[in-house]
Amino acid sequence: MKIKLSLSVSALLLSFSVTAQTDDSAAIRKIVNDIMNNAKAYDNLRYLCKKIGPRLSGSSNAQKAVEATARMLKEAGADTVYLQPCMVPHWIRGEKETGYVQLAGAAKHPLKLCALGNSYGTGKKGVSAAVVEVNNMKQLDELGLANVLKGKIVFLNFAMNQTYIEVFNAYGESGVARWGAPTVCAKYGAVAAMVRSLSINPDDYPHTGVTSYNDSFPKIPAVAISTNDADWLSSQLKRKMKLTAFLQTNCQMLPDAPSFNVVGEIKGSEFASEIITVGGHLDSWDLAEGAQDDGAGVVQSIEVIRAIRASGIKPKRTIHAVMFMNEENGGRGGSKYLELAKKNKEQHLFALETDAGGFTPRGFALQMNDQQFEKVLRWKPLFYQYGVYNFSRGGAGADVGHLYELGTALAGLAPDTQRYFDIHHAATDVFENVSRRELHLGAANMAALIYLVDKYGL
Amino acid sequence: MKIKLSLSVSALLLSFSVTAQTDDSAAIRKIVNDIMNNAKAYDNLRYLCKKIGPRLSGSSNAQKAVEATARMLKEAGADTVYLQPCMVPHWIRGEKETGYVQLAGAAKHPLKLCALGNSYGTGKKGVSAAVVEVNNMKQLDELGLANVLKGKIVFLNFAMNQTYIEVFNAYGESGVARWGAPTVCAKYGAVAAMVRSLSINPDDYPHTGVTSYNDSFPKIPAVAISTNDADWLSSQLKRKMKLTAFLQTNCQMLPDAPSFNVVGEIKGSEFASEIITVGGHLDSWDLAEGAQDDGAGVVQSIEVIRAIRASGIKPKRTIHAVMFMNEENGGRGGSKYLELAKKNKEQHLFALETDAGGFTPRGFALQMNDQQFEKVLRWKPLFYQYGVYNFSRGGAGADVGHLYELGTALAGLAPDTQRYFDIHHAATDVFENVSRRELHLGAANMAALIYLVDKYGL
Repeated sequence: MKIKLSLSVSALLLSFSVTAQTDDSAAIRKIVNDIMNNAKAYDNLRYLCKKIGPRLSGSSNAQKAVEATARMLKEAGADTVYLQPCMVPHWIRGEKETGYVQLAGAAKHPLKLCALGNSYGTGKKGVSAAVVEVNNMKQLDELGLANVLKGKIVFLNFAMNQTYIEVFNAYGESGVARWGAPTVCAKYGAVAAMVRSLSINPDDYPHTGVTSYNDSFPKIPAVAISTNDADWLSSQLKRKMKLTAFLQTNCQMLPDAPSFNVVGEIKGSEFASEIITVGGHLDSWDLAEGAQDDGAGVVQSIEVIRAIRASGIKPKRTIHAVMFMNEENGGRGGSKYLELAKKNKEQHLFALETDAGGFTPRGFALQMNDQQFEKVLRWKPLFYQYGVYNFSRGGAGADVGHLYELGTALAGLAPDTQRYFDIHHAATDVFENVSRRELHLGAANMAALIYLVDKYGL
Repeated sequence: MKIKLSLSVSALLLSFSVTAQTDDSAAIRKIVNDIMNNAKAYDNLRYLCKKIGPRLSGSSNAQKAVEATARMLKEAGADTVYLQPCMVPHWIRGEKETGYVQLAGAAKHPLKLCALGNSYGTGKKGVSAAVVEVNNMKQLDELGLANVLKGKIVFLNFAMNQTYIEVFNAYGESGVARWGAPTVCAKYGAVAAMVRSLSINPDDYPHTGVTSYNDSFPKIPAVAISTNDADWLSSQLKRKMKLTAFLQTNCQMLPDAPSFNVVGEIKGSEFASEIITVGGHLDSWDLAEGAQDDGAGVVQSIEVIRAIRASGIKPKRTIHAVMFMNEENGGRGGSKYLELAKKNKEQHLFALETDAGGFTPRGFALQMNDQQFEKVLRWKPLFYQYGVYNFSRGGAGADVGHLYELGTALAGLAPDTQRYFDIHHAATDVFENVSRRELHLGAANMAALIYLVDKYGL
């Protein structure tokens, strides 16, 4: 199968002539113009943010979002809309968290904090202990092995590196403080972990996100504090101030809950068995509206369906727009999509994920074999006029990533990221922080790539 | 002089080797890192927006901004800071405008409107007339020649083209409705002009901006209405609704007022007589904080001075950071800078303007001769890692543009423009709509270009 596909790809490569480029340029211009003039993505996002709001897996809002996007996909012109049932983790924050720092002989300094996703609560009485600051994983191990962390609250102050121009690189580097370090703190006997928010800017908002436990160690409470609080706390510790912190969180993990992926389909006219997927994730953190993360990706994916219909294109291959459930704290929707693809022996040619915000698109991260990569590179000039020029190898995304196992070629929309970590997982990720044109321009470039993959295969 | 300069440029071109690229790459990385870690631009912008606010030419706030930026330039490390006196137009809005549309037999529809800059007021009794919609200049002439506009309020509904990816192109096309059409309406006997705001999005804010009169025709009142109001009004007119509009504006042009450009200078160590200018404009419209237009450019230009000092660079040439006064409604600061350059026989090698907002930088618009252009193109790879790749010919900006007469090579920072016309000249151009990282990244790339021009000449 693989070899046959590769041969046909080679033949198509040879036929991608200048004439084709001209025709494709005109076809893409038509799609782009339709989206820039008539897109429904921004209005759909408003609905998702303002009429529904936060959509954490297992919540009633997540269910409302399932129903709303199923309707939007129908309105966009999908032939069929169906749900893929999947069980999801059901974590709840409970009553709002509290916490403070107590300096010897001074007033309490209240902390702007929130429990990390999937973390265990402290219970009503909370936890109180001396604070030890740690700045990286190496130091965490050193202090842990020196028995310094036992009985302490560990302050994981891994500041994001401002000098990384691609902000996801800073997130990748410092993010371990949130997703990996708390359980290491537990290993060394700490009573709680207090993580500097993964915000690239000084601000007053705690940024949540998932943490994880290792069953060999105690499941200690874990919170994020705002970057301004982190800077203040670090300055106090540098001055050798004697201090303790108090944290009280009320979150808990309930039994798994039933939920769904939402799939909107346009049946292919020639190669209906070959599936092209475009998707974002429907769930969001509970602190905000999940506007950029990933309401934007959801409505952009629906927009691709609408634009294909409105432009009068009849796809040769079958197009799936997928609203994945539970990307934030479990990835169950992505797993389920793969599981069903295997069970139903589906042939997944290509999958495009959009989960880096609806900012001005600048390129695509491509996760595919060399031949496919070369082929996509030939299309690059078609995107220049839309400000998209950065076609490079990289991870496509957490949801479509599951399909890699099937040999599916993957891509991720790569927008400008300068503003993403201002609002990521925080109360500021609201509709007002999404630009209509940036959102639509992203959808337009996604639709253009889907058009090319559908026409030429991959 | 010109020939001698060109010869030395050729010699330098040959010497721009791979080794130089490596050295320059390291030097630029040092500058960029310093700015991303330590920039003062965002804090300076907060001061300009929140402690001072709107800074229209001739206002007391404009004077406060002169004093504040002189201080900022000193703090940034300029050797010398001086003011260039210039007289500026002194237009005032007066009491807030009012206006509405009266449909036959229906309630009044109040309009979200503002007087256009430099326009004449209606006086207390206002102006009331039937409304005629016009969609382009050709139609304006046709209807005018057919005597349809006499005694009417002309509704200049020149919607910005959503399909232009570079939004300045849409502004350039539709902007004539504001800066040129009202006086043409007067020529054809109209009593007032009502311009669709130059906003690329549907919104509820009137966007002001300068208009101009031709002394041969009456100076009729001219207002902008919000794009939502424009769409509503157009839909009413399409339904053949009989309607009149009432407009009342209280603006007036006072006698010219004294003001200043602010110049911060670092004296060159080798070629002190060759001047490199970097600048933005200090005045802003009166409706908002002028955060993106052009507080951003002002603080970025000051940041270039700070970063040069902080990075320990000793410029060979003399660097001027210039806060130009009166770009918005007269351009007197730019004229004055040229006038003094001529009077003092200054040698202006290069000037870089930043007046397109403090958004993610994507390139530079270059306005220079072929040889200079080729030379700058050779530096392009040094910018790729900072997301800047678009070096193309284009207008540098209204303030440095005056220097073209001297043969000065010019450039304009070209940031992403998707959000600019959401807020341009409207009450929404506030500090909160500026991203710290985008602002600083713009300054970093400006400093890098200044570094190269200083080192290699042009």
